[in-house]
Amino acid sequence: MEKFVYFFGNGKADGNAGMKELLGGKGANLAEMTNLGIPVPPGFTISTAVCRAYYENDRTYPSGVLNQVDENLDKLEKLMGKKLGDPEDPLLVSVRSGAAVSMPGMMDTILNLGMNDQAVRGISSQTGNPRFAWDAYRRFIQMFANVAMGMDIDVFEEILAKMKKNKGVELDTQLDAGDLEKLVGLYKQAYKKHKKEEFPQDPKKQLKAAIDAVFGSWNNPQAIKYRKINAIDGLLGTAVNVQTMVFGNFGDTSGTGVCFSRDPSTGKNVFYGEYLMNAQGEDVVAGIRTPEPISSLKKTNPEAYRKLVALKDRLENHYRDMQDMEFTLQEGELFILQTRNAKRTGAAAVKCAVDMVDEKLIDEETAVSRVSPAQLDQLFHPNIDPKQKQVMELIATGLNASPGAATGQVVFSAEEAERWVAVGQKVLLVRKETSPEDIGGMHAAEGVLTSTGGMTSHAAVVARGMGTPCVAGCKDIVITGKSFTVGGKKYKEGDWITINGTTGNVYSGKAILSVPKMTQDLTRFLSWTDKIRKSAVRPGLKDKGIVIRTNADQPNDAKVARSFGAEGIGLCRTEHMFFDDGKLEIFQEMIVSDTLEDRKAALKKLLPLQKKDFAGIFKAMNGLPVTIRLLDPPLHEFVPSTVKDIKTISDELGIKPAKLREKIANLKEANPMLGHRGCRLGITYPEIYEMQVEAIMLAACDVVKSGGDIHPEIMIPLVGTREETQIMHDRIEAVAQDVLARRKMSINYSVGTMIEIPRAAMTADEIAEHADFFSFGTNDLTQMTYGFSRDDAGSFIPLYLEQNILHHDPFSSIDISGVGRLVATAVELGRKTKPDMKMGVCGEHGGDPRSIEFFYKTGLNYVSCSPFRVPVARLAAAQAAIAART
Amino acid sequence: MEKFVYFFGNGKADGNAGMKELLGGKGANLAEMTNLGIPVPPGFTISTAVCRAYYENDRTYPSGVLNQVDENLDKLEKLMGKKLGDPEDPLLVSVRSGAAVSMPGMMDTILNLGMNDQAVRGISSQTGNPRFAWDAYRRFIQMFANVAMGMDIDVFEEILAKMKKNKGVELDTQLDAGDLEKLVGLYKQAYKKHKKEEFPQDPKKQLKAAIDAVFGSWNNPQAIKYRKINAIDGLLGTAVNVQTMVFGNFGDTSGTGVCFSRDPSTGKNVFYGEYLMNAQGEDVVAGIRTPEPISSLKKTNPEAYRKLVALKDRLENHYRDMQDMEFTLQEGELFILQTRNAKRTGAAAVKCAVDMVDEKLIDEETAVSRVSPAQLDQLFHPNIDPKQKQVMELIATGLNASPGAATGQVVFSAEEAERWVAVGQKVLLVRKETSPEDIGGMHAAEGVLTSTGGMTSHAAVVARGMGTPCVAGCKDIVITGKSFTVGGKKYKEGDWITINGTTGNVYSGKAILSVPKMTQDLTRFLSWTDKIRKSAVRPGLKDKGIVIRTNADQPNDAKVARSFGAEGIGLCRTEHMFFDDGKLEIFQEMIVSDTLEDRKAALKKLLPLQKKDFAGIFKAMNGLPVTIRLLDPPLHEFVPSTVKDIKTISDELGIKPAKLREKIANLKEANPMLGHRGCRLGITYPEIYEMQVEAIMLAACDVVKSGGDIHPEIMIPLVGTREETQIMHDRIEAVAQDVLARRKMSINYSVGTMIEIPRAAMTADEIAEHADFFSFGTNDLTQMTYGFSRDDAGSFIPLYLEQNILHHDPFSSIDISGVGRLVATAVELGRKTKPDMKMGVCGEHGGDPRSIEFFYKTGLNYVSCSPFRVPVARLAAAQAAIAART
Repeated sequence: MEKFVYFFGNGKADGNAGMKELLGGKGANLAEMTNLGIPVPPGFTISTAVCRAYYENDRTYPSGVLNQVDENLDKLEKLMGKKLGDPEDPLLVSVRSGAAVSMPGMMDTILNLGMNDQAVRGISSQTGNPRFAWDAYRRFIQMFANVAMGMDIDVFEEILAKMKKNKGVELDTQLDAGDLEKLVGLYKQAYKKHKKEEFPQDPKKQLKAAIDAVFGSWNNPQAIKYRKINAIDGLLGTAVNVQTMVFGNFGDTSGTGVCFSRDPSTGKNVFYGEYLMNAQGEDVVAGIRTPEPISSLKKTNPEAYRKLVALKDRLENHYRDMQDMEFTLQEGELFILQTRNAKRTGAAAVKCAVDMVDEKLIDEETAVSRVSPAQLDQLFHPNIDPKQKQVMELIATGLNASPGAATGQVVFSAEEAERWVAVGQKVLLVRKETSPEDIGGMHAAEGVLTSTGGMTSHAAVVARGMGTPCVAGCKDIVITGKSFTVGGKKYKEGDWITINGTTGNVYSGKAILSVPKMTQDLTRFLSWTDKIRKSAVRPGLKDKGIVIRTNADQPNDAKVARSFGAEGIGLCRTEHMFFDDGKLEIFQEMIVSDTLEDRKAALKKLLPLQKKDFAGIFKAMNGLPVTIRLLDPPLHEFVPSTVKDIKTISDELGIKPAKLREKIANLKEANPMLGHRGCRLGITYPEIYEMQVEAIMLAACDVVKSGGDIHPEIMIPLVGTREETQIMHDRIEAVAQDVLARRKMSINYSVGTMIEIPRAAMTADEIAEHADFFSFGTNDLTQMTYGFSRDDAGSFIPLYLEQNILHHDPFSSIDISGVGRLVATAVELGRKTKPDMKMGVCGEHGGDPRSIEFFYKTGLNYVSCSPFRVPVARLAAAQAAIAART
Repeated sequence: MEKFVYFFGNGKADGNAGMKELLGGKGANLAEMTNLGIPVPPGFTISTAVCRAYYENDRTYPSGVLNQVDENLDKLEKLMGKKLGDPEDPLLVSVRSGAAVSMPGMMDTILNLGMNDQAVRGISSQTGNPRFAWDAYRRFIQMFANVAMGMDIDVFEEILAKMKKNKGVELDTQLDAGDLEKLVGLYKQAYKKHKKEEFPQDPKKQLKAAIDAVFGSWNNPQAIKYRKINAIDGLLGTAVNVQTMVFGNFGDTSGTGVCFSRDPSTGKNVFYGEYLMNAQGEDVVAGIRTPEPISSLKKTNPEAYRKLVALKDRLENHYRDMQDMEFTLQEGELFILQTRNAKRTGAAAVKCAVDMVDEKLIDEETAVSRVSPAQLDQLFHPNIDPKQKQVMELIATGLNASPGAATGQVVFSAEEAERWVAVGQKVLLVRKETSPEDIGGMHAAEGVLTSTGGMTSHAAVVARGMGTPCVAGCKDIVITGKSFTVGGKKYKEGDWITINGTTGNVYSGKAILSVPKMTQDLTRFLSWTDKIRKSAVRPGLKDKGIVIRTNADQPNDAKVARSFGAEGIGLCRTEHMFFDDGKLEIFQEMIVSDTLEDRKAALKKLLPLQKKDFAGIFKAMNGLPVTIRLLDPPLHEFVPSTVKDIKTISDELGIKPAKLREKIANLKEANPMLGHRGCRLGITYPEIYEMQVEAIMLAACDVVKSGGDIHPEIMIPLVGTREETQIMHDRIEAVAQDVLARRKMSINYSVGTMIEIPRAAMTADEIAEHADFFSFGTNDLTQMTYGFSRDDAGSFIPLYLEQNILHHDPFSSIDISGVGRLVATAVELGRKTKPDMKMGVCGEHGGDPRSIEFFYKTGLNYVSCSPFRVPVARLAAAQAAIAART
């Protein structure tokens, strides 16, 4: 018989931390902690394999599962010396979900299971605390009815509210045992009314229904959405953990809390957490009461505090990673309910990794594996520009729940957030508190601001996971409908505000945001990634490692990228240079010229300006290679389309507007993406590329003459055939050689091509004959391989992602089986012609970690990405090298 | 020493007919005829290998060539008993080009070589005909100066015209020996003036210069253009034939002519040709004098006629193909100057092939190989609709030089023809006579009309080769500048006329054209192609042969295609059905609907109409498979764009114009080709495809119920991923099964997909999991694989073809190395998943013979093309099967 249920308790467990896949993170850690002798309430875990089988068999269990549950329950009852439903000394258990990957708040939990009309009296007499017993019973009814039986929770909230009103009290705690007993009666009546049956008294029936509910929650809409947003797939399902209840709400010597072995916001090695006395765990997480910082416990209960510190040290040393623990004090006795590697901000991930290396807890490679590219990316999120802050009005301060600054227009529901963002607005989601249904809106928003809840509230945890800035528990703001007031001032939907999740400050108005610089920790951490990356050997490749370059068109961007570790420019788009004032007019003059002579005359005026552009880039990248792409966009992108603009240009150029309109109309295309652009312009208007190549080589000569070290790589865009490549290559060579001959100089340059058309990939062996290097333009390659116009696909890609037709947006993360297969084909064919040919990627995928791993495996020599993605790419490349080794 | 020069004469030759590659067609046939004992003037052939070497070595000859020329010249002089330049009895030779593939009039020829101041007197005294001698000399000077030395021919024409004017005569023949001697003097003076040297008297120098000129002519612009238009490549070059001159202009018992062993226009087995007495061959070909029909020779010179008939019978029997011969009578003695397989019209090719099978000259397979797909295609060229003819004004009649009717606007130069056609006009090129420079214009024009020249004039020969209708030698029309007059009426540039190249008639105005039906010969011929095609076995393929289907959207088209032999419909485009009046409005109503309910209501109205459409197609194709493609184009193609049309529609639909404009604006796309269309619509608006599938299945049920035999194949357009295919396939199955269940019927249908997106080809193994068949949409696949928008690529494709960047227009003939590689990849991947999967092609390449050969080799089960291409496809498929065997 397959083993479906795993026991833990009494210092011994069937499972261990290595069994996360099967027992879920929570179950595996409960087993591991039990084995370590940590005080964990005993229980058992029903494996994720049962969840998988449950869904595969149309929501029924494999035979043997329920028997094993009964056996383990027997074992638990024996160990605890209590029985479920016992009228004297009843056992109460919790039933919780727990998948291999943590999905906070996504799935359902039922506490106090085992309560019934007998048990409540047993608990009451055993504890001598009837108020506690009836409170536990009414909480159980509500949770069971809602979670296991699908009843609306408002039914119970209304009954409770009515009772409080009748009694003239405000807080639940002001209700006494008698009130609560009455409440239980009313709750049971309500249950019977809605479910057409009595509230179940048989604890085994309760348990079966609770287990069903947890497995059922695996595929509830929020859980599916959460997995989707976090790209979690390939899991078997959730496990179910049935565990003896301990109570933080047993009275004033009881309490419950959440603590971290280090600060999950900053990564600093300080004990960090929150607790509430006389409360259950749900009270902390739900953010209804604002908890005390863990440091208070030191004063109020030094013994428990000492024990807790010892346990967290032990757990962190055992797992060699920052721990996130739930604990309960039951009448002064400490229990650890769960431990897991803590979710943390990007800053905390780096700080923690660097500190742990210094503390000799982990080695550098482990440190590099510990920080995800998404976490690192957070550090390059915008901050409020320091100058801006002086003039911004601080209106409130809350908890600094998720770092980074955000500015946007206020909206008050997740739905509105998604709606506004869909039409291109930037929004800040303002809520009392968020709940799992808000995930979509939180993802869409620039930032989140809540008026209640602590650092471990739903909003805070989820926002940190997403890397979305969040200020939580900002009590100063009062939300009513579609507005909030603070300091007597009203902010309506659509008003601009700014939050700083690093400080907790909230400002009125729109802010200018800036991005932080490198820190010492970051520099060290990234140097470790470089060590790994640059020493990596791949079969068949001569050079070690993969190089990180940047896409930059201006000296300033180039300098920023270099400060982030860029090792060259992989894509310098020359057309961006034409959009400067002054240059654009000359270029337009060229475009509308009737004769070759007129075109050449205009280009002659552009030559010195382009030369200056290139010289600037070369100087900024001194000593490193610079890939310059010749003109790519269709000419109509450079001419105006409005009547007014046409008038202006026609005056400037001294052309009749009618003639200019005709010229412009002639340039219009039905599908510009597939039109007259790239090297097609180079073939039909050779004079344009000739001017550009001349400018590149003249600039290179000048910079070399003044002591520079220059490696220009001239790149031909949009080739599809061997013949195009040959003609372009030969013409470029002719112009370059001519410049060098005139200058009597010799410069180390090369002439290569983009591979961005499917045909180019399919015939890369032929194209390689006339190219010194390949650079994959995966943006265009994705457009043509999928037949998706990036400008238009917005009308169906969201639905495609929702229906799982696409698992990733192919413009964000490379489509490995289609576009990727073309890239791999081209690499193989190209290297057949030139075995040591340099190949890289300059599409936006060059900054996407999953894509970088693919490019690494495929044998590319470099990736090129936007300047702020360079550190992320360095990390992703190092992780790819580690993954390829293992 | 490599042999470069091949002798022929005295009944023995170094070469033979099998050496066309090396000796050119003319040289190989001269050798073959010599070996056969045919009276051929002796000479020698300098091989095509010399031409290749000449261009490879920067226009110099390999060593040994000139020595071999000298040796063979010696041999020739000994055989003839005459010497080049001999003052008593000089040898005169012709120097002609001749490549492996005939290129009529494309390259240069020099006659009477060996003439000089001595030789002219030798000829004069030897023949006793000084007029002939001086005429031969002045012709040689003109030809040599023009062809070998690049002088403008007008220089000589002006001198001649002046002399005739001074003498008061009109015709050359009215000049006497003294005049011609004087003319020689004036010609030599002109030569000296232009070339700064005396006219060369050394015959060996003349010969060397003439050989240089012929080799040089291989790469003159007309020759290059001719090869390009006729897709001739892979040749070594031209050979040079040096051959003893015989003279048709020796006096009244001399003459020269061109004859065919059968009628090259109709293919009828009648002796056919033309001749001119007292003339050289150039006079016939150039179309300056109008020649006599060959039948006249029977009366004027029965002995020569008898000999000629015997020789043509012998040659045709030897070559087992229709022969095209040049002959000369020199003072009554008959010489054959050249023979070759005759160029012929499509009708003649079929007739001749069928007759020769009946005459047991060739077998059926040879007959099938003899007719090119382009020739067969001619038979399906438009003709004037019979009804139309009654009301058209016949304005003139000329020679029926190339069959088929054409209607267009009159232009008077090849340049104008190209210019007008470039902007979308249809033109008829009207010329006195065409010359090699006019090739481009003739290709562009719908038809050609000339006022002089015979059936073997340049215009006639070239037009037949192109399959362009031509009326030649239409003496009634008088061309002056940009107009012509006929019957006192003037026709200007831009006026519409119509010609019928089958009858020689010329009509005023624009005609409605119609296409001829199948003939008995055609039916027999095509049945032979079917026998070959259907019995062909390909490795790894279960079914024999390749099936020919048609693309048809309407019952009428389907019937026509079936009459031409279509074996099913490969592509029925459902969207064309929506453009009918009545349906379009309902579809527009659907498009602009706000809600699913409104859309469904509109679609419900469309359902019975679509059902009727499908029933019509099924009935027309009873017993054969019909592939129906679900809606493909983006929705904006169905809505109006002009203000007026929007007003009309908004009135019809009862929607405010502003709202309608907004709806329409929302549908607009930047790159519609890559936009929201095909199965993307099927995913986002499932109700559209559901209606279509329901209509298909309901129609199928109805037709089956009334005794029909139906095989619907439902095809999903534009899939790119496995997931799209799966979702669409499952939805279609659900609707289809629902209809069958409701109707309680069972119908043999299948659900497949287009492969027209590069990604679909690259992941065809995955897509095949959810598709019963593949149909390659090579139009879209070409657009995306090349990144060429068909609507826009006109701005550079012509230049690409001219610069040989593209060797074929990839939208006409498949790009084998790029798009073809994707097709082959998809076939291989698809069959990995489903080894016997049916695969076909429905892009326009399905009717292109070169592409059909590729699809045959690649293992497709069928090709589908437009109805009128079906016979061509049947032939091409048979020829592909033959080629694959050998």
